[in-house]
Amino acid sequence: MLMNKVALIGAGMTRFHHSLHKDKSSRELFVEAFLECLDSVDKSISHKDIDALFISATASEFFEHQSHIACLLSDWTGLNPIPATRIEAACASSSAALEIGVFAIASGMYDIVLVGGVEKMTTLEVDEMTYALMSGLDHPYECILGVSNPGLYAMMANAYFEKYDSSWEELTSISIKNHHNASMNPKAHFQSEIMDIAKKISQKKGLKFDNEMDFLKSPTNPYIAHPLRLFDCSPVSDGASAILLASSKKAKKFTDTPVYVTGLGHTSGTMSLHDRRDLTSIPASVEAGNRAYKMAKIESKDIDFAMVHDCFTPAEIIATEDLGFFPRGEGGKAAIEGRTRINGEKSINTDGGLKAKGHPIAATGTAMSYEVWKQLRGEADKRQVNNAEIGLIHNVGASGGTAIVQIFRR
Amino acid sequence: MLMNKVALIGAGMTRFHHSLHKDKSSRELFVEAFLECLDSVDKSISHKDIDALFISATASEFFEHQSHIACLLSDWTGLNPIPATRIEAACASSSAALEIGVFAIASGMYDIVLVGGVEKMTTLEVDEMTYALMSGLDHPYECILGVSNPGLYAMMANAYFEKYDSSWEELTSISIKNHHNASMNPKAHFQSEIMDIAKKISQKKGLKFDNEMDFLKSPTNPYIAHPLRLFDCSPVSDGASAILLASSKKAKKFTDTPVYVTGLGHTSGTMSLHDRRDLTSIPASVEAGNRAYKMAKIESKDIDFAMVHDCFTPAEIIATEDLGFFPRGEGGKAAIEGRTRINGEKSINTDGGLKAKGHPIAATGTAMSYEVWKQLRGEADKRQVNNAEIGLIHNVGASGGTAIVQIFRR
Repeated sequence: MLMNKVALIGAGMTRFHHSLHKDKSSRELFVEAFLECLDSVDKSISHKDIDALFISATASEFFEHQSHIACLLSDWTGLNPIPATRIEAACASSSAALEIGVFAIASGMYDIVLVGGVEKMTTLEVDEMTYALMSGLDHPYECILGVSNPGLYAMMANAYFEKYDSSWEELTSISIKNHHNASMNPKAHFQSEIMDIAKKISQKKGLKFDNEMDFLKSPTNPYIAHPLRLFDCSPVSDGASAILLASSKKAKKFTDTPVYVTGLGHTSGTMSLHDRRDLTSIPASVEAGNRAYKMAKIESKDIDFAMVHDCFTPAEIIATEDLGFFPRGEGGKAAIEGRTRINGEKSINTDGGLKAKGHPIAATGTAMSYEVWKQLRGEADKRQVNNAEIGLIHNVGASGGTAIVQIFRR
Repeated sequence: MLMNKVALIGAGMTRFHHSLHKDKSSRELFVEAFLECLDSVDKSISHKDIDALFISATASEFFEHQSHIACLLSDWTGLNPIPATRIEAACASSSAALEIGVFAIASGMYDIVLVGGVEKMTTLEVDEMTYALMSGLDHPYECILGVSNPGLYAMMANAYFEKYDSSWEELTSISIKNHHNASMNPKAHFQSEIMDIAKKISQKKGLKFDNEMDFLKSPTNPYIAHPLRLFDCSPVSDGASAILLASSKKAKKFTDTPVYVTGLGHTSGTMSLHDRRDLTSIPASVEAGNRAYKMAKIESKDIDFAMVHDCFTPAEIIATEDLGFFPRGEGGKAAIEGRTRINGEKSINTDGGLKAKGHPIAATGTAMSYEVWKQLRGEADKRQVNNAEIGLIHNVGASGGTAIVQIFRR
């Protein structure tokens, strides 16, 4: 039980994009997210109010030959000499940073803490980038054999198809929905429906696609790792996100509509896929979900909307089952039936998800919280979930070595 | 003010060494430290008692192409599925992990937390290793110009000599003392007095050195970055360290002699040296010390012994001044006069320091706490400080972008 309640009092993020931030380094990207975060606080807040920084940059060693980045960001944001620490848990890094920010405040040590993540990925070519991200897998047992992140999720997809007699077509419902949601999100990497992208490509190449499936099944959507095609994979994006946390006592000074952190679940799983009995579920996600529900004293049915970790389309289906939103084997069917659309039975990835919003690794976790912040304050514009009261984020490290679930309510 | 008091209830570390651990990976090294840590707990403790893991491996991306190492270590220690998070702050990484472990317990979230660090450095050749560690500097402003860690500390040494009219001879008092202390430490990388090493080398090469200074001034002790010679630099070592933290309530269940964390100071400084007005002090250290003293409600004079960050010999002199142990410009003189020897006026680096105990980057912080644990429990054997009641650790990230000071008492 936490000794003190902790709230979000501000949130900011850059747009996620592959070329827009070409000339910006990760420090410049983070400053941009930080400034929006400061601006988002309802009442005036100053640098002096911020006590500490917990920040993620998952693979900045590879992307910018830069470690020790926390103190650098403390300096660039003008927050120096506050304590600044970098947090890493692969793709779940900045959710881990948020969790630690909560601990630091609940402990009584600090009143206001800045957390967030930044990743400048496009400094590397795709092959080098893929190899860099393979460092998040078990090096001697997976990475060294040439298996990459798409390969691992492809194995999960195949296991799922086999067990539940389903097929790749189910996956397309995820990418189509997430592109639709992202088309309404000004921060998203791709702000287009898949059909709009298909039309653009067909004009360029003199092709013709009658509908989305036509396009998704064509060689224009090539295989990355069978059965995953290009549009089953989240893109490579640059971006940053930032969240300001405060003790509930301090929060009232800065906003009349704080968003409270009510549930924290964080677990480690086996890193290698070969150590798991079943590939159709991520055990760490199930356990993290259970812990978060227990702490928040709610059940999965109480969740109004969720950002789940759809690094690859099968991951969203598995996540919605692992979190108890749908029975085993029915996550894909639920998506096809539109039950995961905004204001469907359970609104999933209202921001476009990793698939269409983008996935600058370390920025992803707190970008999920950013969307929860927007939704719970009724500021999500066309993406708004009606009567949003309880939101959840689910952030997975690599192929499930880490899973973090966090629950927020207004 | 922390809501709960937190104590150390166990500590373990591998020997630090450059060749002894040749066939071990970082996961195997950490398991070794963890097992000693479990064994060190006075009363029986089981894996099930441990709630979370905060672990550092500063540059494992470069050394083993391995990030996301926290969940891997959770698995290899048998602690899976507990939450496992990696913490990074360059050379101060595992002290930052310990601090976060304290927050996590004081927050009420967990009762018992494992913290620690591991670094397997010897996978790289020296030139690659040097470049890897340069990632802890400001990449576009320092690293890219070819400046390395020894170079930065060499600049600090020169500034110090200039300002206080002192010279390289003062530095030798640090390496001589720390090698002496390490000669009594079974965990140290070098367990030899400098004169013993000199004799060994002279026999091999047919040389003759009449005393330590003779050797230290000879070409056998070559310049690394003027004025720093080889014996002014900490070595490249593999190693791991681990500390078990518990709430004061739980601590009593496992030991009658817990060691309490009473002061935490952690600050960020400018990363680049060119952003500092004066190179004869590390501002982040001064501020971290002040914060730790304030929290512990003591002054520098109350400290019985300290592990300070002597990655290079001038760093120890500057640290003893930054922490208020000696007036400005007198740290070197104090060392020459023997006032920093074990049971001198202020016992500094009783374990041999980074210089002679070794400096496997991420393992260093919690290895400092390991020595404090031994000292405060009266288990430091020949290195024992008489009536040791209050111990301090001072851990710097790279050239001072981060400084962490922690105070412990029995």
